[in-house]
This record gives sequence, structure tokens and C-alpha cells, in this order.
Amino acid sequence: MTGFSAARHAALGLDSSDPLASLRDRFIFDDPEVIYLDGNSLGRLPRATAERIGRVVRDEWGRGLIRSWEHWIDLPFQTGDLLGEHLLGAAPGQVAVCDNTTVNLYKLASAALDARPGRSVIVSDDDNFPTDRYVLEGLAKERGYVLRLLHSDIDQGLATTTLRAALDERTALVSLSHVAYRSGALLDMASVTRLVHDAGAMMLWDLCHSAGAVQVQLDASGADLAVGCTYKYLNAGPGSPAFLYVRRDLQDQLRQPVWGWFGQQDQFAMGPGYDPRPEIARFLTGTPPIIGIVAVEEGARLLADAGIGRLRAKGMQLTDYLINLADRWLVPLGCALASPRDAAGRGSHVCLRHPEAQWVCGALATAGVITDYRAPDRLRLGLAPITTRYADVWDAMDRFRQVLAAKTTARSHPDRSPGT
Amino acid sequence: MTGFSAARHAALGLDSSDPLASLRDRFIFDDPEVIYLDGNSLGRLPRATAERIGRVVRDEWGRGLIRSWEHWIDLPFQTGDLLGEHLLGAAPGQVAVCDNTTVNLYKLASAALDARPGRSVIVSDDDNFPTDRYVLEGLAKERGYVLRLLHSDIDQGLATTTLRAALDERTALVSLSHVAYRSGALLDMASVTRLVHDAGAMMLWDLCHSAGAVQVQLDASGADLAVGCTYKYLNAGPGSPAFLYVRRDLQDQLRQPVWGWFGQQDQFAMGPGYDPRPEIARFLTGTPPIIGIVAVEEGARLLADAGIGRLRAKGMQLTDYLINLADRWLVPLGCALASPRDAAGRGSHVCLRHPEAQWVCGALATAGVITDYRAPDRLRLGLAPITTRYADVWDAMDRFRQVLAAKTTARSHPDRSPGT
Repeated sequence: MTGFSAARHAALGLDSSDPLASLRDRFIFDDPEVIYLDGNSLGRLPRATAERIGRVVRDEWGRGLIRSWEHWIDLPFQTGDLLGEHLLGAAPGQVAVCDNTTVNLYKLASAALDARPGRSVIVSDDDNFPTDRYVLEGLAKERGYVLRLLHSDIDQGLATTTLRAALDERTALVSLSHVAYRSGALLDMASVTRLVHDAGAMMLWDLCHSAGAVQVQLDASGADLAVGCTYKYLNAGPGSPAFLYVRRDLQDQLRQPVWGWFGQQDQFAMGPGYDPRPEIARFLTGTPPIIGIVAVEEGARLLADAGIGRLRAKGMQLTDYLINLADRWLVPLGCALASPRDAAGRGSHVCLRHPEAQWVCGALATAGVITDYRAPDRLRLGLAPITTRYADVWDAMDRFRQVLAAKTTARSHPDRSPGT
Repeated sequence: MTGFSAARHAALGLDSSDPLASLRDRFIFDDPEVIYLDGNSLGRLPRATAERIGRVVRDEWGRGLIRSWEHWIDLPFQTGDLLGEHLLGAAPGQVAVCDNTTVNLYKLASAALDARPGRSVIVSDDDNFPTDRYVLEGLAKERGYVLRLLHSDIDQGLATTTLRAALDERTALVSLSHVAYRSGALLDMASVTRLVHDAGAMMLWDLCHSAGAVQVQLDASGADLAVGCTYKYLNAGPGSPAFLYVRRDLQDQLRQPVWGWFGQQDQFAMGPGYDPRPEIARFLTGTPPIIGIVAVEEGARLLADAGIGRLRAKGMQLTDYLINLADRWLVPLGCALASPRDAAGRGSHVCLRHPEAQWVCGALATAGVITDYRAPDRLRLGLAPITTRYADVWDAMDRFRQVLAAKTTARSHPDRSPGT
């Protein structure tokens, strides 16, 4: 056996002893030639989800018609509780599935500002996901707040010292991503929340890149508010609805700005004035998207069966494995790691820097490896623990080095350039 | 032939000459025993929609994965244009499918207020749909406006004279439902819009109960803004996404408050500050719900094939037919019409008043007729023109009179009461 094949054999060995290996069978793989490293943008399709959507459409909508609302009406909360119990560290009654992440951010950030009258500053970081920054910018402008975007290292994430130095008695709200969308840098939810609370501010977490990938302990961290999407690691499909979390004791004190009939007490009395429902239900707006929510439910069940502890352990090992191969094969060819090196300090995706990242992303796609380009010079490699094999990482990195090697060779023989 | 069977025979005759009759075959009817008069709450399932959702889930998501976003990204606008062309009287580039009605109302009402600085009053009516009233109430409270809810007759709708008297130079925004959710009363979009514009205010229409049921001429009416849902007459399924309309020349002047990444210019540059896209795209927020949008597209195509002119003509005839039977059979048994008597003055649903409407609604359901109870004493009978037959109306009214007759008989013999 050559060194090459022995190394790949080792990857297969890791897969055969992977306790999550059998869960791959619960997904649809119609494309065996493709290595999909973009589950951090859009997760794969679970078999149960395809079946469930079919049943909901055909039986519950087609046959049950309006009568199905009798049980649909509880889905935002049932599914929220499922996410809370298995993936978010939240006791029942604190999570709802509704709207999209942007709208939920707007609702909760606005509610948080109302809860801190007399304070004038919103804090986030300059590498936070765009929609987070824009929503906060819009709210700051509309309501006369200062938005302070702290400098975050785009490879290593936001330093706690930077955050600590920025907080004071003017800070109304801090909103940060638990896992940074580009670098994958993971913040310590409990210690950051404590810092923010020490300054008397509200803390709003974006869990888009952490839900289903890393352990989240909302209750134990004392977090106030959180939002997140479900189409990444939760595998609920394109544009599936988002979730929101509001800590139990805050629920009846807060009011979100979009006063809709699904947030109304005794909704079908259709009363004259808005009187928000108690508890988490007041954070709903209009009619919830049922087909989207059942996909979230199926995705959450699948991850619950896997267990977030096992998912996280595999995510750390997979990303370590990828970084190890990248160090050996890709760094000599012009790549650099653009994520924290310590597995405990990152989520389940890894960023690599390359001056021609956009070209590389396209060349990898041609070679059957789907990754994600992020401006200006970064490739994101998302290793969804439930569907990604060690052999996938090995093969992807192998094709990656071939793409880069061919490019380098072409450079020294310009007539054979693959083009940029 | 008895008078009874001759009358039912006449209904069958109307169905056999109905130019829309064949379109019923394009829907799934798994429940031949049920007469469904609630398509104005949740429309029936088109066959094409069940198939399309299956294909999108299985092929576009399951196999295409993230690559499918290349065409998904245009769906909110493509589908909006389809609605605009065939059902809303709107030229391309003015309608987008996104979020739910409540969120869209919030975005557009807020944008409208910004467009009328120095004015302090929002006008709506006290029988407007609850979510409309609550959204406006919330905005008024948040931003220091007065919300004036004009008195609307719950049987006949809002009188134009009432509206005219209420408008002046303080009016920033008027928001009304084109078809009233309870009575079905239909406002004249062009003349109401003109009144509102004469006062210098912005006009925001709610088309939830009119899109797909009555002709809507947004462009020709000079309307500024509109929103509507797609799960009623558009048959797009439970909690399917809503649409919004912003008149072309207003688009670049207006800004909606929820600044999300799907409203951002050059979205994937993920730039530092929010710079809204030109035209209708700036009214998007976060990731649009793809499975929901394709259902809207299928629903819109089906109605486009039917033709809104033919749908409206049949809707008027069906509701006339129902009212005629109600006059003969139900009024003597304690019902009263609670909708405009003139077909040109109402949408495609009819409201009947009965002191025990809630009990009647349940008894009808037991008899296989699905209607809708609306507090305090109203039954809504929604006659979606594309799926409802004249014979359905006949049979439903026949069962209705039997239910009422049995109740009357039981009253005079209390020991045989069916209960309330």
C-alpha cells in the first residue's frame, strides 16, 4: 500500500468507527459524485422530511383543509420546544419557529432596546453577518441609537477584551453571532453574556452557524434573546423558517414591534385592540409557514437522534482532520488557514484564504467539490457532522491540492492556463 | 320530477355549462363527501402544486443543493410578476412574494409614514382585519401617530362618505381591505385611492380577500402600496408567503424598516453598510421561503389559466345563487344576510347572521359542510370560483336548512335537542 492509499484507508477507518455513520442513510444522496461541503449554507435533504412534506401537503392540506389548523396552530411552539430541548439548551416555552432570521432579529432587537430606556448604544462587530449588521443599523437610525461595530479579526473572531472595553452604562444591547459566519470562530456564550449583563445591557445571540453544530446552552448561559435559521445544520430546506428564543422571565416584560394577529390574546375573538398573548406566543407575527415548520421538526428530530454531543465531537474531529490535510497539502500551494486552530474555538466550518479564492471555488465545483466563496479571498468548507464522512474530507482536500497544483503548473506554462 | 329535484337539476345544469368546470380536475378532491365553503380561509390543493413541491424538494433541494439558489433567487420577483400580470393589474417589477401579510403590512405602512413627514394620523376602519388594525396600532404607538378607526358597517362595509369626512391634511396613511373579511363588502379601489390622494395621503390596500377572487387594478387605480396573502383564493397552502406591491415610481423613494441582506445592493459582497437595492427588491428582508413561493407560482398559473374575468363572473353568480337560496330557505328559519346584496359590491364570500352561528357552524360541519364561524354571530360561506360548483351551493344550503329545521323542531321538543 502506498502512503497515499494508506492515508485514504485511514479515513475510511475513521468512517467505519463513526457512531453517526448510520445516520447518513436517513438523508437522500442522489449525487454520489459530489462532495458537498456547503451544509453550513444549505443542509441536505432528510428522507423523513421529503416524506413528511408530502404527507402534510397531500393529507393535511389536501384532505384535512382548514380543519388541520387545529393541530397546525401549535406547531411553532412544539417545534420550538424540540429545538430547545435537544439543540439549544432551552426549557420548554421559550423557543418559537416563525418568520426569517432577519425579521426575528428586528423584532427582538427592537424589544431589547425598549427594555433598556435611557441607554443609547447598540454594540455588534464588523464581521458579524451582514443581515445582523444591517438590521441593527436600521434600528439605530430609526430610533436614534449609536451602532458601534467593534473590530473583529476575520480569521480569529471577536476578542473578549475588545468587547469588555466597549461596554458601559450607555450600552443598551449587544448582538453577536455565536459562531462567526466566515471564520467559524466560536464565542463563549456564558462568559460573553456575563460581561454584557455586568454592563446592564441585553444580549441577543445569532445562532445561525451554531444551532445543530455546536452545543448551545441558552438557559445555563443566562442569555436573554436569540435567533437562528434552520436551513443550515438543521436541514430544513431553502428559506425554511427561523426560530427565536426569549428567556422565560423576560417574555411578559417585552413587546415586539410587529403587532400581528398570531401574537394576539384570544386570537379568534378578533378583538378591537392589540393585547399580546402571554409568554413566547407574543413574538409571533402573522400566519406561520406550516410546510416550512414541519421540515424544521423533522430536521430537529434527526439531530436529536444523533445527539448534539456526538455531532459536536465529530464536527471537531472533522475540522481538525481537514486543517491537518490543508496544512500538509494546501499551505505549500498558497492557502492559509483563516479560522481558529483550536477546535474548541470554532464551529463546524473552516475558512481557508487564497488570493484567487473565487476561481478556486469554481474549479473545485468543476471537480465535484461544492464549497462556498466568501469575499474577498476566502473559501468556506462546511462539514455538517451528520452527513460528512472523513473520506469526503480526504477526497475533497485531495482534489483541492490537484486543482491548486494544476494551477501552479499552468502558471509556469502560461499557454496551458485553466483561466481565471 | 318534484320541485326539489328540478331545482337541484337546474344547479347541475349551471355546472355543466360552467366554462371553468374542467379546472376543478386540476385540484385534488380526496373528500367527495365534504362541501368545502372555506376556500376563502384556506384554498384547496392544486395537483400541480403537490407535484411541484415534490420536485422542488426532491430534485432542486435534494440533488441541486446550494446550486439551486442560482434560479431560486429570482423566484420572489418572477412569481410577483405573474401575480401582477394576471391577478393584480400590476406591470412587471412592482410585486414581490415574501414574508407574511402582517410583516409586509408593517414594512409598507412604516415606509408610507416616512413618506409623509409632518402628518400625524393613520386612518383605517374598525371592521378591518385584526392583524391590519393591530399592526397600525403598534406603529401608531411606536411612532407617535393617532390611529383613527372609522366606523364600518359590519354587514355593508365602510361608507365612502365616512372616509371622505375623515381625510384631511393631517392624514399620512390610509389602510383598508379591498374586500372586507367578514361581510365581503368590496370597495371601489380607484375612487377610494383618488379620495386619499386628494388629501395628500398614502394608500395601502390589503388584498387578502380579493386577490384571485375579484379584478384588482392596482396600476390603473393609482394605488401606492398593497399587500395580500396567498393561502386563500390563490391556493398556495397553509401559511404560504404573502405578496407586496409598491408602485414603480415610489420604490426608490421609500425605505422599509427591516434592513436585511435580501434587500441589500450587491448582496454577496456583504458590504459594511446597508445600501438598499433599487426597485422592488429593497422590500425583501431575509431568505425567502422557496417551497412556499413555488406553491404561489403554481396557484397563480392555475388562476391565470382560468382568467380573473371568468373567475369574477362565476363568483358573482355563485354568491347570487347562494343568497337567493338563503332568502328562500334560511331567512324563514332565523338567518339574515350580512353581506351587500348587490354582487358588484361584494367579493366571493357571503356572510349570514344567526344568533347561534357558532353552533350552526359545528352542526354544518357534522353534516359535511365546512364553513367559517366569525364572532359574534356570523357564518362566512366562501365560494372559491375555481373549485365550487353550483350543486355544492345547492347541497350546502339544503343541508343548512335541514340543520336549522331540526334545531327548530328540537326546540319545540326540548328532550330531542341536539345541544348547543
